[in-house]
Amino acid sequence: MSSARSISTALRRARVPRPRCYLRPLAPCVPSVAAARTFSVTSAARTDATKEIKYTTHAYPNLKRDPKFAEIAEDDVKYFQELLGAQSAVIDGVTTDAADDIEPFNSDWMRKYRGHTRLVLKPQTKEEVSKALKYCNEKKLAVVPQGGNTGLVGGSVPVFDEIVINTSRMNKIRSFDEASGVLVADAGVILEVADQHLAQKDHLFPLDLGAKGSCHIGGNVATNAGGLRLLRYGSLHGNVLGLEAVLADGTIVDSLSTLRKNNTGYDLKQLFIGSEGTIGIITGVSILCPPRPKAVNVAYFGLESYDQVRQAFKEAKGQLSEILSAFELMDGRSQRLVHESTGNKYPLEGEYPFYCVVETSGSNAEHDMAKLEGFLEHIMSEGIVADGVLAQDETQFHSIWRWREGITEALSHLGGTYKYDVSIPLPELYQLVDDCRERLTQLGFVGDDDSFPVRAVVGYGHMGDSNLHLNVSVRQYNKEVEKAIEPWVYEWIQKRSGSISAEHGLGIAKKEFIGYSQNDTMLKLMKQLKDLYDPNGILNPYKYI
Amino acid sequence: MSSARSISTALRRARVPRPRCYLRPLAPCVPSVAAARTFSVTSAARTDATKEIKYTTHAYPNLKRDPKFAEIAEDDVKYFQELLGAQSAVIDGVTTDAADDIEPFNSDWMRKYRGHTRLVLKPQTKEEVSKALKYCNEKKLAVVPQGGNTGLVGGSVPVFDEIVINTSRMNKIRSFDEASGVLVADAGVILEVADQHLAQKDHLFPLDLGAKGSCHIGGNVATNAGGLRLLRYGSLHGNVLGLEAVLADGTIVDSLSTLRKNNTGYDLKQLFIGSEGTIGIITGVSILCPPRPKAVNVAYFGLESYDQVRQAFKEAKGQLSEILSAFELMDGRSQRLVHESTGNKYPLEGEYPFYCVVETSGSNAEHDMAKLEGFLEHIMSEGIVADGVLAQDETQFHSIWRWREGITEALSHLGGTYKYDVSIPLPELYQLVDDCRERLTQLGFVGDDDSFPVRAVVGYGHMGDSNLHLNVSVRQYNKEVEKAIEPWVYEWIQKRSGSISAEHGLGIAKKEFIGYSQNDTMLKLMKQLKDLYDPNGILNPYKYI
Repeated sequence: MSSARSISTALRRARVPRPRCYLRPLAPCVPSVAAARTFSVTSAARTDATKEIKYTTHAYPNLKRDPKFAEIAEDDVKYFQELLGAQSAVIDGVTTDAADDIEPFNSDWMRKYRGHTRLVLKPQTKEEVSKALKYCNEKKLAVVPQGGNTGLVGGSVPVFDEIVINTSRMNKIRSFDEASGVLVADAGVILEVADQHLAQKDHLFPLDLGAKGSCHIGGNVATNAGGLRLLRYGSLHGNVLGLEAVLADGTIVDSLSTLRKNNTGYDLKQLFIGSEGTIGIITGVSILCPPRPKAVNVAYFGLESYDQVRQAFKEAKGQLSEILSAFELMDGRSQRLVHESTGNKYPLEGEYPFYCVVETSGSNAEHDMAKLEGFLEHIMSEGIVADGVLAQDETQFHSIWRWREGITEALSHLGGTYKYDVSIPLPELYQLVDDCRERLTQLGFVGDDDSFPVRAVVGYGHMGDSNLHLNVSVRQYNKEVEKAIEPWVYEWIQKRSGSISAEHGLGIAKKEFIGYSQNDTMLKLMKQLKDLYDPNGILNPYKYI
Repeated sequence: MSSARSISTALRRARVPRPRCYLRPLAPCVPSVAAARTFSVTSAARTDATKEIKYTTHAYPNLKRDPKFAEIAEDDVKYFQELLGAQSAVIDGVTTDAADDIEPFNSDWMRKYRGHTRLVLKPQTKEEVSKALKYCNEKKLAVVPQGGNTGLVGGSVPVFDEIVINTSRMNKIRSFDEASGVLVADAGVILEVADQHLAQKDHLFPLDLGAKGSCHIGGNVATNAGGLRLLRYGSLHGNVLGLEAVLADGTIVDSLSTLRKNNTGYDLKQLFIGSEGTIGIITGVSILCPPRPKAVNVAYFGLESYDQVRQAFKEAKGQLSEILSAFELMDGRSQRLVHESTGNKYPLEGEYPFYCVVETSGSNAEHDMAKLEGFLEHIMSEGIVADGVLAQDETQFHSIWRWREGITEALSHLGGTYKYDVSIPLPELYQLVDDCRERLTQLGFVGDDDSFPVRAVVGYGHMGDSNLHLNVSVRQYNKEVEKAIEPWVYEWIQKRSGSISAEHGLGIAKKEFIGYSQNDTMLKLMKQLKDLYDPNGILNPYKYI
């Protein structure tokens, strides 16, 4: 970042014509975690592995396999082999020793959850999914739907011997209409692949997140992924226009509307958005995609306090308004971890307790730059930010984003991470990190040498959505530390009417804590729905609600 | 509009500094239909009335009152009077002759639907709604939830003697948080009142429609209203963050989250959005409101063909991009009706077969004007539009919008209107109007003198959402004409995979035609949900699915 222009220089030269930051099309900007991974994130994790991943059944000893579920027999394997045809469509650990091939589907890339499945199915069509599920439902075989397996709450891997139904072979882009901006694609299309396809047509997938190189769009919808630019493009509840899904009994729900408006009955597809594979398997998605911005700028700031971060955000909303596409918060500790992990020079001269990344996306580079300069002038002259840089080219653009997106990877090199993905009203958003650090410090858990279980308590996240990622980096997963954090962290959030899961979902990690964010009536209604759509409970058992 | 600058003049002067079109805050811009109406739209309609509105039971002779529903007895009235207390909370046509007071709640403002209710309840709290519904559910008394009663499909008025539960006394704005832009309000708050409240805080309600002066935000959510600026601000499925509602059995669903991200279980509130009062009564809404734009511009164009309208829309999307807030289509006939009805001079010199209104909303007047001028220069120099004007002040801004929003009112002066609110892929959007006109003409229905039942077949709508309003203006409602249009119009739409109801909903008008837009599986799943939430079927019977 040596050539990134400092903002104070920029201000002095604000009236002098100079090269703008043209980035068209916006190239993939997530080279860190995602790019390092192949299809299954776990394979990358395995390379790093120094020891085996613990079974989830060990971490959750109270979980018992539900005896209502049948065990997989040889006949079942035969049925699936005949149904799916292709050899690559069934990974059979029942009648053969396929442990190595099965393992990536049994465990998550965080190395935190590991199941005991012995059968993985990779159907290629909705009809195959339908027949497979119908069979499982009749035979009472439990199932775990799985996309790119990039989740953070253990939602996409088995706990016991649930059959994995993986969407990776449903990977076709079905259509894209330039006039309406509507993309229709199979559930197993990788987010980055979808976005690259759209880039060729000057459009953008309205969702972007660190795992884009691995995650499947069906999984994104099933977990109601939020990501980096929800602030600008809105949630999947607004952008998904239609879904194709298969219910537990094999019923194909064909609701792949490509219409922006359609008020003909209950909007059932909404139930699948964020249902984490518990009421059906999504096989196809229809989604509204905005035009790709012609100009994208990104700036990186150092700030002295959280109050100043809030002020900067307020100013960004007011002055950048319709071109503001991301406002990300990172604390000083998170940036130090990235620095130590990558060896990269800090973007700014000094160190600051807070940093933020501000991105604009617009249709006119000159206008955008003028707005951005107005914003910069204001926050610099008012002393809201201490220092900052503005990317001058695509390399710098990616370099800045890496300081935000590299946090997860930096943490993953250090051991385990207790991840909390929460919504909290803005005024107290960062307070949770300070309170958590103080609590763990007082309990004697935090320290620099290896005798302390906790290495660091860091906070970062999507300021624009009031969404904080509280990460507790531990030298190894430690029940004592976990007990000190949970349920304390959930009680803290409940007191502020926050959400214990903003965008990561419930999975197995948050299942028992949902009561901190949903009342008994809501839970009763949710269970009613689960029973309606999956009366045998075969879909993703032991998780969610 | 005499002083509205013609666009060709604007182009000649494009480089000359001149007054910009500052409109801050954006004032209410819907003076036509909405402003003419008081709380109950029907009262305005009654003033015009030359004869009584036909009962829905006459128009739909096959509809029979379901004998499972109890008839209202004196004891029931007493119960409700004690429950609700205030005298104004119960309009009792059971034990008294309150026919005149009841009538506005029995019939719709289009004068097309009329029920036989003898009891109207106006609860003030969710607890009162809960107790009233619990009682009705136990006694099997049918109920019609009603907001501002501005719907177009007969969804908010009774058919037989269903009790009307009207939300007009639940009319408090509960809170607004400037940092997050989240408004929490009672369901009975009038849309324009909510928007004016937000205007004082430099925010905007993310929904705008002609009936804003009368409609309730609870009703807007219950019908998933779309309106004029969905193109820019997205649908209620994305913007509604939380709901408070009461189920048929009196269960209060308290899910008034104000969080932008909350992935803790099925997003049940989504089911209420667009459910038209069939699974519960919405009593409170939490909604994300964007900052009010600092600059708003509006232009009005004449075009020679529908192909040119499509080209203009494509250019507007590309060049106005993030500041494009509306792109409305009106055909020449619709504008002639407005001209004849208001006596106003046309905005342009000649007459054209097509017109459109293009609105921009942004944060920087100078940038917006530069983008708009680039767009204008392009579409004028390429001959895409024939002529146009750009509003120079707020008066002209409203004046232009009146040419779009005045269509409904102009039609209402002429007799009856068969209204079809449909989604069709853009290439064929307007073809439906031509085909319909040709069909009715060939059948001998269309003509200028009073012997012809059909006065005009016009088309207009939200081009940006592929949403067409096909309106057949008749001298009086006529079963022969209706039969010539339906189901022909629905078959036409089905062939193009469109929607038979884009934003108006199903009500009683579209109930029997839902099969043209939803398949049997979807219908089965919808009925399953209805049975789940309202097993006695007391909520808004005879309508919806």
